[in-house]
Amino acid sequence: MDKTYTIAIDAMGGDNAPEEIVKGALLARDKYKNLHLNLYGDKGKILELIGETKQDRIKIINTTEMIEMGEEPVKAVRKKKDSSMVVAANAVKDGSADALFSAGNTGALLASGIFIVGRISGIERPGLLTVLPSVDDPKRQWVFMDVGANAEVKPSYLYQFAVLGNFYATHVLKKPNPEVKLLNNGTEEDKGDKIHIQAYQLLKNGKQLNFTGNIESRELLNGHADVVVADGFSGNAALKAIEGTALTMFAGLRKILVNGSLKTKIGAALVKPALKEFSSVLDYNNAGGAVIAGVKAPVVKTHGSAKAKTVSNTIGQIKIMLESNLVPDITKYVDENKDQFKIILEEK
Amino acid sequence: MDKTYTIAIDAMGGDNAPEEIVKGALLARDKYKNLHLNLYGDKGKILELIGETKQDRIKIINTTEMIEMGEEPVKAVRKKKDSSMVVAANAVKDGSADALFSAGNTGALLASGIFIVGRISGIERPGLLTVLPSVDDPKRQWVFMDVGANAEVKPSYLYQFAVLGNFYATHVLKKPNPEVKLLNNGTEEDKGDKIHIQAYQLLKNGKQLNFTGNIESRELLNGHADVVVADGFSGNAALKAIEGTALTMFAGLRKILVNGSLKTKIGAALVKPALKEFSSVLDYNNAGGAVIAGVKAPVVKTHGSAKAKTVSNTIGQIKIMLESNLVPDITKYVDENKDQFKIILEEK
Repeated sequence: MDKTYTIAIDAMGGDNAPEEIVKGALLARDKYKNLHLNLYGDKGKILELIGETKQDRIKIINTTEMIEMGEEPVKAVRKKKDSSMVVAANAVKDGSADALFSAGNTGALLASGIFIVGRISGIERPGLLTVLPSVDDPKRQWVFMDVGANAEVKPSYLYQFAVLGNFYATHVLKKPNPEVKLLNNGTEEDKGDKIHIQAYQLLKNGKQLNFTGNIESRELLNGHADVVVADGFSGNAALKAIEGTALTMFAGLRKILVNGSLKTKIGAALVKPALKEFSSVLDYNNAGGAVIAGVKAPVVKTHGSAKAKTVSNTIGQIKIMLESNLVPDITKYVDENKDQFKIILEEK
Repeated sequence: MDKTYTIAIDAMGGDNAPEEIVKGALLARDKYKNLHLNLYGDKGKILELIGETKQDRIKIINTTEMIEMGEEPVKAVRKKKDSSMVVAANAVKDGSADALFSAGNTGALLASGIFIVGRISGIERPGLLTVLPSVDDPKRQWVFMDVGANAEVKPSYLYQFAVLGNFYATHVLKKPNPEVKLLNNGTEEDKGDKIHIQAYQLLKNGKQLNFTGNIESRELLNGHADVVVADGFSGNAALKAIEGTALTMFAGLRKILVNGSLKTKIGAALVKPALKEFSSVLDYNNAGGAVIAGVKAPVVKTHGSAKAKTVSNTIGQIKIMLESNLVPDITKYVDENKDQFKIILEEK
């Protein structure tokens, strides 16, 4: 029989919590037979959603507090000791769960990952990792990090983001020898500010990294890389610009087709299925959750408006992270290459 | 009679030079009766394109060198003293022309603007300014700067970018009291790295600026601001991500519609005019040229692949910059507010 894993689920985080979170957990429970799902939150509400008879591989742990979307993350995590997110994170810390899932406050989950679950020894700064599609080839996905955890970086952080992204690509996306690129304001080796120029050199000389140079944000969606490394500030700017442009364009397109002439309207009805298929390429719900990479266990965030199906898919993503031995392999690698990491630190 | 202006035109810059540049200049000459256009480049080739009889308000100045697209900008400007771009820039410097236009190497034009035309006294770093559309309201345009000149910034640069962008919005886009926002990785006052947190405070306390807070790149195309201030690194990342996403989406859309079922193909034919109209909203050719803001005269770059119509439109944009007294008004403002600029510099 498959090895079993326990995932701690913050049942109270997100716009549709606990309903969609619990429904999603039940879907995942039925789909993935080797998962145990522990739901943290309002026991009464959760029980109502589950019904007494269906508790196979589902456990409910009652919590009395909740971290809201607008709260200051670090303060919230420190103060709300009995919040669903913090209690779930502590379960990962003490070993009663193998991974953490939430659709709640991203900053608070980041803080829970870093301060409760804890950094992998040797990783200076965990980052936010997300997986995006390539429009040219929707089956080709690529890893983008950091997309917002570290507004200020050092070259060594960028190098470590590359190592983390590389492991994610090999283990979870199953890409052998992933092509790693650095997000920069030009493709030449000397482009960017001091930090990116130095990071380029670290990446170029990096052990076991298939680093192939800089990439500009203009090319991100064209599938030119398997892993794109960025500082959290410009990574965030690029990611949100992609999301915003896609959303704005679909909205604008819809408006023009719906408000158009009769001819346009007829045409719109005929192309609708094709447009729908195309829009699904850039749909969040297919992209998977954002991963707090560099901490001692899988910690994954899905977007706040996630519905049950997305919750279930994200739990499936965590299952792959666990089964592929992602975090132990990263930990072993960093440990075995301490010297290399140390040199980088001294070089700063 | 209207005041007349002379624009120095680098006739050899860009993928379609000198043909499209000369054709565009002729279009602009016929359209704007108060402009004198001086063409710098290969006199023989240019004469051939113009024909001897049509030299009204057009002057040709022969140059023997050309700065290529791939050349290292600063070095090329220093070395190629008789290049069309450098000779044209010198004409602006010595007062024989009022403004500079090129479709050539952006970095070289930036260097020509800064080192030959010269910074406005009190402006520490000129920046690249571009105008983008809002998809919600295609008639509403907004100013974005810096989009790539300064990968490394100080808070005072960002403040000065705001002042420059503000003048461009009032003078060229004719917006009274433009709403200024700072591109950041969150909307709250304390978001971003140290530089953006400090810049927020400078902007908030800035004299005569209608600063209304941070904007995330996700909202850029939705018309929430008249002026968006950014450091050159993340401004470039956001701009290129917008361009890349729009281009990639249009290409993907085209592919899906053309390769679709018969039904989809018929629909595609019917919606084609509406799609074309929509795509023109995000078309470079309508967006105008990129401006080197903060130098002593209008210096404007259009994209390398520009055709005659775009060249003519960009010359029209320079005409508005000249007629609206943009640079003299900025110079006067910076001069009259030296104390304010000085305080900012000391605060760093």
